[in-house]
Amino acid sequence: MSIKLLLTGGTIDKHYNESNGELDFVETHIPNLLELGRNRSNVNIQQVMLKDSLEMDDADRQTILEACTQAEEAKILITHGTDTIVETAEVLAGKKLEKTIVLVGAMIPFVFKHSDAVFNMGFALGVVQCLPQGVYVAMNGQVFDWNTVAKNREEGIFEGKLSTHPPTFA
Amino acid sequence: MSIKLLLTGGTIDKHYNESNGELDFVETHIPNLLELGRNRSNVNIQQVMLKDSLEMDDADRQTILEACTQAEEAKILITHGTDTIVETAEVLAGKKLEKTIVLVGAMIPFVFKHSDAVFNMGFALGVVQCLPQGVYVAMNGQVFDWNTVAKNREEGIFEGKLSTHPPTFA
Amino acid sequence: MSIKLLLTGGTIDKHYNESNGELDFVETHIPNLLELGRNRSNVNIQQVMLKDSLEMDDADRQTILEACTQAEEAKILITHGTDTIVETAEVLAGKKLEKTIVLVGAMIPFVFKHSDAVFNMGFALGVVQCLPQGVYVAMNGQVFDWNTVAKNREEGIFEGKLSTHPPTFA
Amino acid sequence: MSIKLLLTGGTIDKHYNESNGELDFVETHIPNLLELGRNRSNVNIQQVMLKDSLEMDDADRQTILEACTQAEEAKILITHGTDTIVETAEVLAGKKLEKTIVLVGAMIPFVFKHSDAVFNMGFALGVVQCLPQGVYVAMNGQVFDWNTVAKNREEGIFEGKLSTHPPTFA
Repeated sequence: MSIKLLLTGGTIDKHYNESNGELDFVETHIPNLLELGRNRSNVNIQQVMLKDSLEMDDADRQTILEACTQAEEAKILITHGTDTIVETAEVLAGKKLEKTIVLVGAMIPFVFKHSDAVFNMGFALGVVQCLPQGVYVAMNGQVFDWNTVAKNREEGIFEGKLSTHPPTFA
Repeated sequence: MSIKLLLTGGTIDKHYNESNGELDFVETHIPNLLELGRNRSNVNIQQVMLKDSLEMDDADRQTILEACTQAEEAKILITHGTDTIVETAEVLAGKKLEKTIVLVGAMIPFVFKHSDAVFNMGFALGVVQCLPQGVYVAMNGQVFDWNTVAKNREEGIFEGKLSTHPPTFA
Repeated sequence: MSIKLLLTGGTIDKHYNESNGELDFVETHIPNLLELGRNRSNVNIQQVMLKDSLEMDDADRQTILEACTQAEEAKILITHGTDTIVETAEVLAGKKLEKTIVLVGAMIPFVFKHSDAVFNMGFALGVVQCLPQGVYVAMNGQVFDWNTVAKNREEGIFEGKLSTHPPTFA
Repeated sequence: MSIKLLLTGGTIDKHYNESNGELDFVETHIPNLLELGRNRSNVNIQQVMLKDSLEMDDADRQTILEACTQAEEAKILITHGTDTIVETAEVLAGKKLEKTIVLVGAMIPFVFKHSDAVFNMGFALGVVQCLPQGVYVAMNGQVFDWNTVAKNREEGIFEGKLSTHPPTFA
């Protein structure tokens, strides 16, 4: 089984810019993360963009959709900023691709000591391998159907209906 | 969906003993790990034992099996030392419980900077939620059927047949 | 020997604000840092302010000077943003206090995995104990006299004349 | 000012051996540690040995003494296991070299998340630059004269008379 890993940026991949003290993007940390996790699953990484999801527009979402459509793999994992992860999921779901698509992000960038990035990526890489076709958001150790999930910005968590596809979630 | 998380020890949970400079067990780090991952899935932790898996005997494996049998949850995740994780998986599989049981460990304890523990636990917590009934070992970002997997001690990896239950692994 | 540790903020103490994805101040990390270092020297911490040093004005520097003047300790360590650390050092030096004053900061906040904060604080806490009266900046594993040091923003380092007070730097 | 950094091993430099789950030595982490601290002081590293200090014998201490004697630098920093750091300090002090010699170690190896190694090395690199001739042990954010210090094994700390050479410790 091959997995396409599409990188789009988001908090998970932000970097500390020493010259101005801000967080921005330079290059992805995801290969380092997978190495830390000693991943040996067959992951094909494609960097689609590195953007804060608040700055993504319709054209960006079409670009992500295009990458999903073009992917030869039936399993697609997408790193994404959490602020508009649901909007992108909706665009992807509209295409009704015969693929399993899981979107994942992090509340704290990988480069911080207390980041949730490693846990989230491990989790998402697991569920994308097991879930049937559909579009999902994986956060907080939970799998959500794309059409029920929402980010609770006050609490910094995701909420919604947990995915329950049989026999997986019997 | 509730998940029973049985702790049995293993490398993942080892601790640095300052007084003698060795690695041993004091108390589990798994709750801290789940907090780091901002887990909000319903995980019920039960500490069955904290042992190096090389020191586990038949009675220990029966204790773990008993904990699986008694668990009300249909989803069971077990932290375990990697050296005899397959032996324990075999004992658990022999009982043919109508449950999803995933065993997971780490090559490097959680307390080390370069540990694979967080990734592995995220991964395993994901797949246990999605896999159908059966006994699996989750390591290296891969899910193995219990009866095909083996630890390659020279390379420090797990190898075997990847689990292929339809429709999950279509 | 008692050491007064004055906290003024700076990069070293910045925090990741999850709600807006920016770096700001909430509470200091310095006590945690000293605990990590198992410090047992007699350090009296006083939080003077928590500011980005680019936002400090003359009044802020007078406040820091006042804290130095009021301190009962003859040894004073000050955490400070690197961008204007030299300006503050100049103000403090102008008062010609009969004290040893060492200013220290970090290029990367403590909360990042690759932070220089812990090394820098260890270094500065060491030199403040050993240096004679004067005002110094401690960065990059080096002690600089306040009146020769400058931040090289392109390279993210400090340069200047190394302090050479005999017999210390014989 | 040049500093000779002699590596002898000790807890600070221990490594996790995946194949047997024990802590041993492979290669030093000290260059990585200095890079993390963005050190730019002139440090000349010489690996004398990589040993647990409980396994050091008289010949080893003579080897370390020889390295101190041969060093062209007047400032010498030595990484050492904490268990016999005082014994080695005594041997070095017996030679009455006209040099500043600081011995340092760690209670927790550098490779652990909660290690004191980075703080200790920063501290020791600072004091070796500032202290007059003599032999010192630097631990717990404190500088001890070699002939008064002892490791308190129950509490995992160093105790003794703090160094008070004027004008440094006025």
